[in-house]
Amino acid sequence: MTTLTTPTGDRERTIDLNGDIGESFGVYRTGEDERLLDIVTSANVACGFHAGDPATMRRTVRLCAERGVAIGAHPGLPDLAGFGRREMAVTPQEAYDMTVYQVGALYGFVRAEGAVLRHVKPHGALYNMASADAALAEAIAEAVRRVDGSLALVGLAGGELVRAGERAGLRTVTEAFADRRYRPDGTLVPRREPGAFVADAGEAAAQVLRLAAEGRARTVCVHGDGPHAVAFAECVRRALLDAGWRLAPA
Amino acid sequence: MTTLTTPTGDRERTIDLNGDIGESFGVYRTGEDERLLDIVTSANVACGFHAGDPATMRRTVRLCAERGVAIGAHPGLPDLAGFGRREMAVTPQEAYDMTVYQVGALYGFVRAEGAVLRHVKPHGALYNMASADAALAEAIAEAVRRVDGSLALVGLAGGELVRAGERAGLRTVTEAFADRRYRPDGTLVPRREPGAFVADAGEAAAQVLRLAAEGRARTVCVHGDGPHAVAFAECVRRALLDAGWRLAPA
Amino acid sequence: MTTLTTPTGDRERTIDLNGDIGESFGVYRTGEDERLLDIVTSANVACGFHAGDPATMRRTVRLCAERGVAIGAHPGLPDLAGFGRREMAVTPQEAYDMTVYQVGALYGFVRAEGAVLRHVKPHGALYNMASADAALAEAIAEAVRRVDGSLALVGLAGGELVRAGERAGLRTVTEAFADRRYRPDGTLVPRREPGAFVADAGEAAAQVLRLAAEGRARTVCVHGDGPHAVAFAECVRRALLDAGWRLAPA
Amino acid sequence: MTTLTTPTGDRERTIDLNGDIGESFGVYRTGEDERLLDIVTSANVACGFHAGDPATMRRTVRLCAERGVAIGAHPGLPDLAGFGRREMAVTPQEAYDMTVYQVGALYGFVRAEGAVLRHVKPHGALYNMASADAALAEAIAEAVRRVDGSLALVGLAGGELVRAGERAGLRTVTEAFADRRYRPDGTLVPRREPGAFVADAGEAAAQVLRLAAEGRARTVCVHGDGPHAVAFAECVRRALLDAGWRLAPA
Repeated sequence: MTTLTTPTGDRERTIDLNGDIGESFGVYRTGEDERLLDIVTSANVACGFHAGDPATMRRTVRLCAERGVAIGAHPGLPDLAGFGRREMAVTPQEAYDMTVYQVGALYGFVRAEGAVLRHVKPHGALYNMASADAALAEAIAEAVRRVDGSLALVGLAGGELVRAGERAGLRTVTEAFADRRYRPDGTLVPRREPGAFVADAGEAAAQVLRLAAEGRARTVCVHGDGPHAVAFAECVRRALLDAGWRLAPA
Repeated sequence: MTTLTTPTGDRERTIDLNGDIGESFGVYRTGEDERLLDIVTSANVACGFHAGDPATMRRTVRLCAERGVAIGAHPGLPDLAGFGRREMAVTPQEAYDMTVYQVGALYGFVRAEGAVLRHVKPHGALYNMASADAALAEAIAEAVRRVDGSLALVGLAGGELVRAGERAGLRTVTEAFADRRYRPDGTLVPRREPGAFVADAGEAAAQVLRLAAEGRARTVCVHGDGPHAVAFAECVRRALLDAGWRLAPA
Repeated sequence: MTTLTTPTGDRERTIDLNGDIGESFGVYRTGEDERLLDIVTSANVACGFHAGDPATMRRTVRLCAERGVAIGAHPGLPDLAGFGRREMAVTPQEAYDMTVYQVGALYGFVRAEGAVLRHVKPHGALYNMASADAALAEAIAEAVRRVDGSLALVGLAGGELVRAGERAGLRTVTEAFADRRYRPDGTLVPRREPGAFVADAGEAAAQVLRLAAEGRARTVCVHGDGPHAVAFAECVRRALLDAGWRLAPA
Repeated sequence: MTTLTTPTGDRERTIDLNGDIGESFGVYRTGEDERLLDIVTSANVACGFHAGDPATMRRTVRLCAERGVAIGAHPGLPDLAGFGRREMAVTPQEAYDMTVYQVGALYGFVRAEGAVLRHVKPHGALYNMASADAALAEAIAEAVRRVDGSLALVGLAGGELVRAGERAGLRTVTEAFADRRYRPDGTLVPRREPGAFVADAGEAAAQVLRLAAEGRARTVCVHGDGPHAVAFAECVRRALLDAGWRLAPA
């Protein structure tokens, strides 16, 4: 289903909005989780390596379950001080191990709440590295498949993660970013380059509609760190609904 | 079954030998895991908080599965520098959260290896605190029950963990220690007091036989940190076999 | 000088206001450090164990130096998830080691900025434990003395830290809390008991004036986590100035 | 002095042997520190990020002081699970911050023991990255200079660290490795390539003598993890002494 390019049927007029939540740690609070959960249909829950402690994970899973938001694991690199955003030279075996560990840890909370784990989306540098590196992507896909073959793997549209997930026989979900700018060839403008981010909510909404219409993304990532971000996310959501898209977990 | 005091039937002539394994971390190696796995019938696998990193957990679960040793989670306090042996003033809620997290993380590896998770035994200070504190014990039992109600909870014979496990409807397993000395009232001599440890393997074996015969323990803990410890454990195992006990996971 | 009970001379009409700052970590921000630094005369800077990462420490030390606020180390227990507030059964030797490490780490940044390190005040549970336990207090005092005998040691008025500091030949500074309630015997109402905190700024100011007049505290602790706290701190500062106290580092 | 190429005077017939020590952590023991300290003239002491906890640092500094071995800081990346060997995309600012923190922490123990801190040598991936990246090297050199301008900076002969140290006005010490193989152009064969390591002690000794005679290294790194490594190190030491070199801290 990830290869369709023309949204003609009912399923094709459905799209997912996903957001990273549960990124608090101990006494530290970040993100407008409660508000973001009113907007998204899927939540990527931090699993303790880049963010998220056990108490936060419990609260977050419970919150998602109450709101009916689909729950996914958001495994990251073991780098709390860097929020998982600094690339690390991990081997595929290490990427496999840290994925199994973190998906399992979240699984614990999901089971404890009688909820369902739906997907896995790597975080930050792990996501970026795996989007570009087939061996890392394969290791992560293998980790997901071995923990639970019914989990979906979310990855950058056109990237290695999605390809590896397909090879592993997983359900895959292509992702686009509302607030990142794309190059003509479909790749993202890197974070450190000028113009990497889309600051205007209208431009973001237009970009999302275009990517959705082209069938290039089955899920769209929005953010919730700051009230500004939530308004931005709400704007994207509104534009999709106004254009006739149905919002549902991928 | 934990309340029987006379071993008369077949089941009663069965006892479990358990050992803590997978306590290496990164480049650091500790314990004679391979040799200990030839002796024990159940393994308590460290889950990353007091010891054990994801790579170690993967290797350890695989090793247990290959040897047919029953796999259990060994959650500890978040204190790698102190090896989970320093008491921390955690709340019952925090004990619940760290148990769910760690049991879940190990579950990931168990599922990935197509193995089965059988039991949970808290580690070190968490074990001691929960043996004496009903509220902590209840929180841990609740965590285990909510993650997987078919898991057994291992706790000190006569302690709060076993009681809390029974109240939660879990299968419980009473534990005795081969190398620790007991007071006449059945409690352990604290670690820091003189005479806390049994250094003589013959004395340890005799104590284990007595505790087993009295039905006070369904599992006996042996250690594998050091070649001496393994010989000690082997001696205890031999004594049980010679006395007609059948060794099997509890 | 800490034993004087009647403020008669110029020195005695001087008091210090101290605040905990630099408690952010990585992407996580907490506390109104910039605003609090306009109020206090001494800053206790987190050193990485309970809060504070190297980047935060650098920024914080620089900020203090720019504002002319006296810089002190605020070593805590190694428990980021618990913010150093959970008691841990550390030995005096361990308390010594973690104090030397953290004071040294902050020393690095203080030297790098060409600033001066003035005092050490343990954080959270380490402070409380050392206030009540003479052996822990002695270990911390010894750590401070051996790293730099010219550093002042800040501790609860009437507690073991101050006594140990005096025995070690350190300059000691007795501390009172603006927002905590005291029992008639001079000890603090424990955090978990009702009435532990003083919510009314006027009551807090009155209490501070009384403790200062009685010579029971040479420094008063105020907090900066939240805009409310900063207003509270400002109120205490104003009351001291209006009563004719001169504010200066202890 | 690091630019001399012909060892003609007394000073030039002097060379340093350095080893990484204090790399244990908590209950985990690694390395033959006591034996290695009989061989080396300088010790690089782990500072808690890649290895080494506060207790280990205290013991290690004391041991060095007792043996008269020169003490240096060995700061690494914040990656205990990876032993600081995995490259991380840290910014120069982050490299500066982690160097100041770790050098400062060790400084605490050195001061507490009444000893002297002589040098700084980055560990593992941080060493390698800084040897090849001028901006990282400059940040580390700046950190060392600002903490204590009298410290020497040890770096790969021909690498960026040494160049940055010279630009910063630090004393620099060029380093060669006894057990690594060099390419004809003087660079190291990368660890993962075949032939990266010299397994034969005689070959290692011959290589060290050649590098020393050419004036390309003022210090030679030997290892102590395992009895084999210590014998290897002893062989290198013996060869230098037999060739008339005097061993002393650089």
